[in-house]
Amino acid sequence: MLEGVTMAVNVDEYLLHALKEDITSEDVTTNAILQKKEFGTVDLLCKQDGILAGIKVFQRVFELLGEVHLETSYQDGDPIYKGEKIGHLKGDMRVLLSGERTALNYLQRMSGIATLTYECVQILEGSKTQLLDTRKTTPNMRIFEKYAVKVGGGTNHRYNLSDGILLKDNHISAAGGIKKAVELARQYAPFIRKIEVEVENIDMVQEALEAGADIIMLDNMDNETMRQAVEIIGKQAQTECSGNITKERLLELREIGVDYISSGALTHSASILDFSLKNMMPIKRYAF
Amino acid sequence: MLEGVTMAVNVDEYLLHALKEDITSEDVTTNAILQKKEFGTVDLLCKQDGILAGIKVFQRVFELLGEVHLETSYQDGDPIYKGEKIGHLKGDMRVLLSGERTALNYLQRMSGIATLTYECVQILEGSKTQLLDTRKTTPNMRIFEKYAVKVGGGTNHRYNLSDGILLKDNHISAAGGIKKAVELARQYAPFIRKIEVEVENIDMVQEALEAGADIIMLDNMDNETMRQAVEIIGKQAQTECSGNITKERLLELREIGVDYISSGALTHSASILDFSLKNMMPIKRYAF
Amino acid sequence: MLEGVTMAVNVDEYLLHALKEDITSEDVTTNAILQKKEFGTVDLLCKQDGILAGIKVFQRVFELLGEVHLETSYQDGDPIYKGEKIGHLKGDMRVLLSGERTALNYLQRMSGIATLTYECVQILEGSKTQLLDTRKTTPNMRIFEKYAVKVGGGTNHRYNLSDGILLKDNHISAAGGIKKAVELARQYAPFIRKIEVEVENIDMVQEALEAGADIIMLDNMDNETMRQAVEIIGKQAQTECSGNITKERLLELREIGVDYISSGALTHSASILDFSLKNMMPIKRYAF
Amino acid sequence: MLEGVTMAVNVDEYLLHALKEDITSEDVTTNAILQKKEFGTVDLLCKQDGILAGIKVFQRVFELLGEVHLETSYQDGDPIYKGEKIGHLKGDMRVLLSGERTALNYLQRMSGIATLTYECVQILEGSKTQLLDTRKTTPNMRIFEKYAVKVGGGTNHRYNLSDGILLKDNHISAAGGIKKAVELARQYAPFIRKIEVEVENIDMVQEALEAGADIIMLDNMDNETMRQAVEIIGKQAQTECSGNITKERLLELREIGVDYISSGALTHSASILDFSLKNMMPIKRYAF
Amino acid sequence: MLEGVTMAVNVDEYLLHALKEDITSEDVTTNAILQKKEFGTVDLLCKQDGILAGIKVFQRVFELLGEVHLETSYQDGDPIYKGEKIGHLKGDMRVLLSGERTALNYLQRMSGIATLTYECVQILEGSKTQLLDTRKTTPNMRIFEKYAVKVGGGTNHRYNLSDGILLKDNHISAAGGIKKAVELARQYAPFIRKIEVEVENIDMVQEALEAGADIIMLDNMDNETMRQAVEIIGKQAQTECSGNITKERLLELREIGVDYISSGALTHSASILDFSLKNMMPIKRYAF
Amino acid sequence: MLEGVTMAVNVDEYLLHALKEDITSEDVTTNAILQKKEFGTVDLLCKQDGILAGIKVFQRVFELLGEVHLETSYQDGDPIYKGEKIGHLKGDMRVLLSGERTALNYLQRMSGIATLTYECVQILEGSKTQLLDTRKTTPNMRIFEKYAVKVGGGTNHRYNLSDGILLKDNHISAAGGIKKAVELARQYAPFIRKIEVEVENIDMVQEALEAGADIIMLDNMDNETMRQAVEIIGKQAQTECSGNITKERLLELREIGVDYISSGALTHSASILDFSLKNMMPIKRYAF
Repeated sequence: MLEGVTMAVNVDEYLLHALKEDITSEDVTTNAILQKKEFGTVDLLCKQDGILAGIKVFQRVFELLGEVHLETSYQDGDPIYKGEKIGHLKGDMRVLLSGERTALNYLQRMSGIATLTYECVQILEGSKTQLLDTRKTTPNMRIFEKYAVKVGGGTNHRYNLSDGILLKDNHISAAGGIKKAVELARQYAPFIRKIEVEVENIDMVQEALEAGADIIMLDNMDNETMRQAVEIIGKQAQTECSGNITKERLLELREIGVDYISSGALTHSASILDFSLKNMMPIKRYAF
Repeated sequence: MLEGVTMAVNVDEYLLHALKEDITSEDVTTNAILQKKEFGTVDLLCKQDGILAGIKVFQRVFELLGEVHLETSYQDGDPIYKGEKIGHLKGDMRVLLSGERTALNYLQRMSGIATLTYECVQILEGSKTQLLDTRKTTPNMRIFEKYAVKVGGGTNHRYNLSDGILLKDNHISAAGGIKKAVELARQYAPFIRKIEVEVENIDMVQEALEAGADIIMLDNMDNETMRQAVEIIGKQAQTECSGNITKERLLELREIGVDYISSGALTHSASILDFSLKNMMPIKRYAF
Repeated sequence: MLEGVTMAVNVDEYLLHALKEDITSEDVTTNAILQKKEFGTVDLLCKQDGILAGIKVFQRVFELLGEVHLETSYQDGDPIYKGEKIGHLKGDMRVLLSGERTALNYLQRMSGIATLTYECVQILEGSKTQLLDTRKTTPNMRIFEKYAVKVGGGTNHRYNLSDGILLKDNHISAAGGIKKAVELARQYAPFIRKIEVEVENIDMVQEALEAGADIIMLDNMDNETMRQAVEIIGKQAQTECSGNITKERLLELREIGVDYISSGALTHSASILDFSLKNMMPIKRYAF
Repeated sequence: MLEGVTMAVNVDEYLLHALKEDITSEDVTTNAILQKKEFGTVDLLCKQDGILAGIKVFQRVFELLGEVHLETSYQDGDPIYKGEKIGHLKGDMRVLLSGERTALNYLQRMSGIATLTYECVQILEGSKTQLLDTRKTTPNMRIFEKYAVKVGGGTNHRYNLSDGILLKDNHISAAGGIKKAVELARQYAPFIRKIEVEVENIDMVQEALEAGADIIMLDNMDNETMRQAVEIIGKQAQTECSGNITKERLLELREIGVDYISSGALTHSASILDFSLKNMMPIKRYAF
Repeated sequence: MLEGVTMAVNVDEYLLHALKEDITSEDVTTNAILQKKEFGTVDLLCKQDGILAGIKVFQRVFELLGEVHLETSYQDGDPIYKGEKIGHLKGDMRVLLSGERTALNYLQRMSGIATLTYECVQILEGSKTQLLDTRKTTPNMRIFEKYAVKVGGGTNHRYNLSDGILLKDNHISAAGGIKKAVELARQYAPFIRKIEVEVENIDMVQEALEAGADIIMLDNMDNETMRQAVEIIGKQAQTECSGNITKERLLELREIGVDYISSGALTHSASILDFSLKNMMPIKRYAF
Repeated sequence: MLEGVTMAVNVDEYLLHALKEDITSEDVTTNAILQKKEFGTVDLLCKQDGILAGIKVFQRVFELLGEVHLETSYQDGDPIYKGEKIGHLKGDMRVLLSGERTALNYLQRMSGIATLTYECVQILEGSKTQLLDTRKTTPNMRIFEKYAVKVGGGTNHRYNLSDGILLKDNHISAAGGIKKAVELARQYAPFIRKIEVEVENIDMVQEALEAGADIIMLDNMDNETMRQAVEIIGKQAQTECSGNITKERLLELREIGVDYISSGALTHSASILDFSLKNMMPIKRYAF
């Protein structure tokens, strides 16, 4: 949840930095036009169908700048439709104008990711297979993007290199085989970690099972091999399928019965969901 | 250019922060497998056709982590093709493994933007019309994304709210009309600023001209109105067209002869260009 | 305006850093004397005639430290006179004592710059010539110093190296002449930038005009040459005169009719305007 | 000494921040003209007589940006004269151009302060009286300004509120008299601190002596009172005179035999000492 | 006092950093269980006898995270006993759960140091000898640990290398003897500094006295030598004894009549004082 | 491993901050004595028997300050003995003097923790039971303290609140029972997380097993109950014992056959291991 403690400890600094990126000395245009504090209102409009994500981040951007209040009956995860009025902001008009772009940049990207995730999750609906994200996120956006995946119905894979063990091809060859790699990981890692191993064929599946992997990632396998792998593994480990996941491929994979499918595209290639602030109106008096 | 002074002053802090996002205590997997420094090499492979952007950022990520050397004959702006080997990294294998994802996340996003920009610029080739980006960039990625637009052949609009005057609908209504808004801006703004005004119809074009706008943004006009606007404006101001620019629309707009077309999609909705690090090989001795 | 959004995004961090510079562990003297919170009041007195600048910065320093309220009927730009009581602070006496020096250091320097600027602007009063600042500001004080120039009636030149093009002698020789330099700048720079060229003689003026410079800086010219330059340029470009501007020289230059005169001394050699906090009095009860 | 450990721990962050203040995205002008690394040289010229201070800070600014080497036979404290060539820089021309203003802004301000300090110290030459600075420094410039005072021959007063006890009028009244204030300070403060008390008349001098003050600050006294105070105090405490110190007043005060005179003007009202970078020349090959 | 100005300027950043150390993305456990804001209460219990230190730091950790109110009748320095309820927290349960460990880590360490200090100070009770801390503090904990020493009845030695002169063996040999070292220090240091010299035998005591040292540190001397040193020094300088101070040794040293005894163990080897948060209860409505 | 990538990304900032804590303007003593760079050597001596931890952190502190080289044949984990010379530093004497305390503060604390851990691990030697640390670390020291535990032969529990699920009493009651809590955690948490549940009696053990907990923490149980719990759990989950672990208790617990024992005392109550820098000697020439 991007609110409360998480906002205070891990989010505010990103928002403030993004504001500094957009305002390095002052907002020249706004300060030219409004040389003193005046109050006004503006509407947040949705311009495409999708899933809302990031409404509290959107709101927080304005709060960091000054006196602004958001009225909305929507919350993250709600389906929204083109043309809907999602919220109504009132407050210092200079804050509304200066914060608009940064607030929308977060909201649009997060809602875009939630929307794409939701579409993919719908395809898996009714199966046991769950959709995972990856570490292929935009730099300095991970906390926002992984949260958006969750809002869209996806499940988060490890957050970063510090909180999960994933032995990939390069680690395995550096260690001298799956068995040795798993052993080294088990000795080294905090005891609370599960160990995941990436495999490419049935022999490696066997090795991973013998080594005692908790999760086995089936990487770039054809359907037949994957089906075989899933059968061999059974309940001995969890299975994750990865590699160029398209919507069509999701349909095939749900039949195979893999536990998890991970998709980098959720975060690295989602289009934004479009919003705008419209109908700014000065208001005479102002009270929260 | 994302190198030299710009790298030292404005880029390194983002890269280091992105690395901290991915490594909050240590890279558990890599440190489990490689408990001391060992040298190796790995190839940077391109997995889609496109335009390369961010190769020095990619390299810098590794340099911030330790001893790694990149050999490459490519530079930003080069066309690259699926399957090509773009570079060869050698150095501390732990650095190669721990930096891989962050380095690729930058390279992929920047090359994706450069590629989309290049495709759009091709459509305008031969006309006088130039392609602009917007402030609809991913938070904390602006310096990378605007640079990628330039690599792809685009032109940068203002960097942020502090270095350009753009009077939009809300500013104009707050000021009480275009004339008043331009006057306020001229009085307030640093003398080195051009003044741009957003207009929606022919009357507003006239007003903007009379007020002495340096640039007039024609927002969401139909082709006929835009043609008329361009004619009226002539050489009295520069013209910029904005609003939901698709590739098809670019073709129409190049005929109308607007000076600039701005597109938010270049930065907010480009897919990444896919790369990977492959063929890691330990090497016995190592020298730069 | 150093308030609102600008304060939140760009000013607070400087103020907090300045406070950390003055208090690296604790204010030993104040904490020795006042070991618990006690309320009091103190007066802000002006000790020299001048122009007030930075009153909200002064106030903000205390607010960052704790509970303090400033009562004042003055605002930035007001003429103030020796002996006047500019404001009345009430609040936590430890905050008043610990914040005093940092708050005054800002107020004194900003008011000193506003005062010097005002004196220079008075000399140009009635002419079309406007007074500009430069980038010769005290490091990490630019936002305060450029604002003070504006409060004193001056106009801001570019804020920094990122938001204006100014081709000086070294750039011109590196590029191989004015024409080439302007061309390179036009290709490279964001389209919203004006291009300014520094020239030293009439030939260079001609070159700059032919190259299409938006602004021409007449550097260290004698009056006769400058007069000639201004005449040649006419309305084809704006003119800026720079180089060792004294008050006497301002009188001569206003006659020549240059558009702008820039002066580094406004920010690098203004004396402070003296203020002090006096008459601290404990108060029994306290309410905002 | 602003070099070595002090530079690494306490100075670099200010220099880097000042560079970020001047380059918020990139140096547009320089990057337009020099699109790849080219080497060149430039001279550092002195334009006024004075005392050099800050040459290593000047040099460090360039080093933070890239490859630049300074050749100079001057060091801080050297007298320098108008027209002298103080140093010769060679290196990446983009670094020379982008760092020029920030490097000069430090050098000019520091040398200006050292020069003014030197002039005042000369007046006291031969007497036992030493010249002190104050905390009236420019915010975020204290480490540079106090060092410059030392270079000019002055002595530093306490660095900040954390490392010295100075009981001023407000502290004394809050504590209920000098005796009580000194007692509280002695109990509270780290044992290594001297205790200084500000007094305004002879009665207070007596009180301060009885309370056991280590240093007595004679604030705004006329010459006769000060002479009497100095006599009474004798060797029981050190004496410091403060308040609107002009050069004329220094002459009078040296006769009275006070131990120290403190002057805020040294740091808050010194003009800069003018320098410039001239004669940039491209060079073919480059080696340190 | 760790509150007010000191908290705002020097403490908050440490607390926030410590929270970021414990929450790098989100508190997964708490957010899983409490997916929206719910109010509750919890008790702060003391599990060992000792001296309370850091109660406002404890409270501030929660305030930085959200809405939490602490009710307590205890303040720093109070003796507390095993089983006592020290305070009652009410507020957002997610804040209570997420902040618990960090808040307790500060409180436990600070109270542990205050308790050990108090025990040592008791041994010296009735003598003129005071107990000092050292710079042997835990990195990035000095402000908390030195404050805890003071709460326990100890006196602070210099805060750091910038605010005290202490000439140790290595400085003395580098300078070429005590006399030369003291001379160099007196010339170089801010005039407000006392000068302390470390000596190991009676000859060095003599030298230090002749050089005019303000404080003489008697390092690792046996009781007989120390007694002799104290006698020789008399009132000419303050005396400090250092080196492996145990409680037994304190008893001997108080007889010798040294002014100060410094002990690194106070900060580097104190055990924590144990506290816990217990009896969490949801509450229906909530008001401060 | 506190070296390489981890040092660059996660450690350097702590070291630099600790240096800033100790040097807020300059090291007055050292700079007074050594006004220019002079080279010297000094020995690192061990003053107590124990386990070495943090030697690269010790070295890195000096490297951040300037030119210093450490020669040593010891590495972390080596047993060391009172009186041994652990290393020999050579380089800029000002760096040696100014960095000494901070470098030792890290080394002493880390080695103290490693030594205590080692002693406890010895008691468990030969059994299957492993020793765990906790989150009861000193604020802003976790990365150093958890590493020291590992050096001493311990195993790390979760690093922080973001990378492990641990359902404690308060979470369980907030969720309404163990079953519900585990369910919520499984739904919410990244799929790579194991789920640990804290239980206090046999009924709760049963509940935790039925809920499918991966790890069961047996909190403050008597030996008999714990034995029973371990038997019931068998291989269905891992077992962790926590709560006031003394060395005596370790002996009893190893017999019961619990998988893990966690001890807060390892990090919150270890005494330091004493080291010192001795025998500083100037050297004429210097080369790495």
